[in-house]
Amino acid sequence: MTTYQRIVLASRPTGEVQPDNFRLETVEIPAITDGQLLVRNQFLSLDPYMRGRMSTNKSYAAPQALDETMIGGTVGMVLESKHPKFAVGDTVVGTLGWTEVAVSDGTMLRKVDTTHIPASAYLGAVGMPGMTAWYGLNQIMAPKAGETVVVSAASGAVGSVVGQLAKLKGCRVVGIAGGAEKCAYVVDELGFDACVDYKAGNLEADLAAATPDGIDAIFENVGGAVFDAALARTNAFGRVALCGWIAGYNGEPTPLNNARFILTNRLTMRGFIVSEQPEFWPQGLAELGTLVATGKLKFRESVAEGLASAPEAFIGLLKGRNFGKQLVKLS
Amino acid sequence: MTTYQRIVLASRPTGEVQPDNFRLETVEIPAITDGQLLVRNQFLSLDPYMRGRMSTNKSYAAPQALDETMIGGTVGMVLESKHPKFAVGDTVVGTLGWTEVAVSDGTMLRKVDTTHIPASAYLGAVGMPGMTAWYGLNQIMAPKAGETVVVSAASGAVGSVVGQLAKLKGCRVVGIAGGAEKCAYVVDELGFDACVDYKAGNLEADLAAATPDGIDAIFENVGGAVFDAALARTNAFGRVALCGWIAGYNGEPTPLNNARFILTNRLTMRGFIVSEQPEFWPQGLAELGTLVATGKLKFRESVAEGLASAPEAFIGLLKGRNFGKQLVKLS
Repeated sequence: MTTYQRIVLASRPTGEVQPDNFRLETVEIPAITDGQLLVRNQFLSLDPYMRGRMSTNKSYAAPQALDETMIGGTVGMVLESKHPKFAVGDTVVGTLGWTEVAVSDGTMLRKVDTTHIPASAYLGAVGMPGMTAWYGLNQIMAPKAGETVVVSAASGAVGSVVGQLAKLKGCRVVGIAGGAEKCAYVVDELGFDACVDYKAGNLEADLAAATPDGIDAIFENVGGAVFDAALARTNAFGRVALCGWIAGYNGEPTPLNNARFILTNRLTMRGFIVSEQPEFWPQGLAELGTLVATGKLKFRESVAEGLASAPEAFIGLLKGRNFGKQLVKLS
Repeated sequence: MTTYQRIVLASRPTGEVQPDNFRLETVEIPAITDGQLLVRNQFLSLDPYMRGRMSTNKSYAAPQALDETMIGGTVGMVLESKHPKFAVGDTVVGTLGWTEVAVSDGTMLRKVDTTHIPASAYLGAVGMPGMTAWYGLNQIMAPKAGETVVVSAASGAVGSVVGQLAKLKGCRVVGIAGGAEKCAYVVDELGFDACVDYKAGNLEADLAAATPDGIDAIFENVGGAVFDAALARTNAFGRVALCGWIAGYNGEPTPLNNARFILTNRLTMRGFIVSEQPEFWPQGLAELGTLVATGKLKFRESVAEGLASAPEAFIGLLKGRNFGKQLVKLS
């Protein structure tokens, strides 16, 4: 093996992401120097935040550069190492991007143990999505036992963890998801108390029926009409962890019509990016890892095969076609 | 004097408040019993929150009952007392409502000193509006010196105090108000660094020009388009004290189009009602009282004359016709 493939951002989307916004390239594997290591990625993580990086709109992170390897979380194995902290055969989690092989100097790279936790879980329930759930739930929503928690995009990588952690705290947990199959999974497999299918056309009435005591805390991934429905059901002093706004990621207008409830119900709302809270990661990952290893935290993966499948899998993720954490498995 | 006048809520408004939603009544002055006192009101406070109480919509407070004296803050003098804590001639602040005379058992009634602070100020800068400003600024916005603070309804009873307190903290303070006269007052008299006239038709561009370093904290009284303009200028980790939503008090739809900035800029937003924070009142009122008594906190009043003028004055307040704290002076 002397070459590998990678995917670069070829152009910025206007509106929906298109396959030709990406370009597959074949590149020579470089020789590593002292302090470097070579990683062969096993799984790529696809996450909604990547849509924001593809644009130059003002956001919390610098945009993805054109003609550079698409950013993204990865788990892989060390092929070669001239780095004192990593050995050949180590499994490492990092953000090496949409590429089969990458050279790293070890920055932001973490060796993980796959004895009790599958490697791919480090991109999901025991990785950034899991930490996003853990942080929003514990540091913003802070629900008490018996309170009602609502989670949108409930079957996704983040939402599924939020709901299970809230159940472990003794909350009533209601998910919002798209389609009967996802809702059945959320209730039957993940153990949520109820799930509202926003595609069924009765979002407000169905959410009201599922939250007879109102809503004490919201984990919001979607924005727009889904968020409006939840805001209208909030109780006094409710908390909102604002994690995503998928409804507007393609630049659509997504007005919030029920923002006045933030006032009338004296809500506390906070937008957050979990990568800005590094001090919480050791505790959070330890808790999440234990829960996964002991079978108390379940997760589901949508696995696309091969690097070339990444663009279509990512476009599907933005349209809600994935079911659980979206990964790309590299051959 | 054996009778007095009061104003009761005659009917609930549908849309804008109308004069015939109120009814002026003449009532006999009752005899007081042990533990009671009789107060002659000198000033009534008119405040936007009263609009909410006139409706039966879900809100943070029980609605004002029909055919009962309209609620509201008052300052007055004790005419008769069979209460151990109050003597004839005392000036008392309370919530005795839209009435010339009221019997009280002392609940929620507070004796105040008018030596250095005019009685009417206890309904404004040293009363509920001042405390609203103090709480939102200190407990939610917590601005540091050099940060940019934006206040809507800047010339009003609450906004004017927010801005002056923020100036005392060394912030850059930008007001938003309706009309050139109010804006001139906010800058020239209150000492704000700038004021944007939202009626001038260039709200977004004018606010951008007045906030070259973005916005670190917002005190929001209005909602809707005014709030959208401020949200679009927020810096990372900005704070929003959500105090009012005047734009929607008559039931108009007031969509928020820029709510996604709460996420992208990782804002913390909190709706609040200062009456729910009684533990902060002693400290806040002491600070506000000292600032008013020493001339460091200025305020302006719109005074309507006579109880019968209250309905029109209140309707004017909701339309922004007042200029400073709206009071009714009783003869």
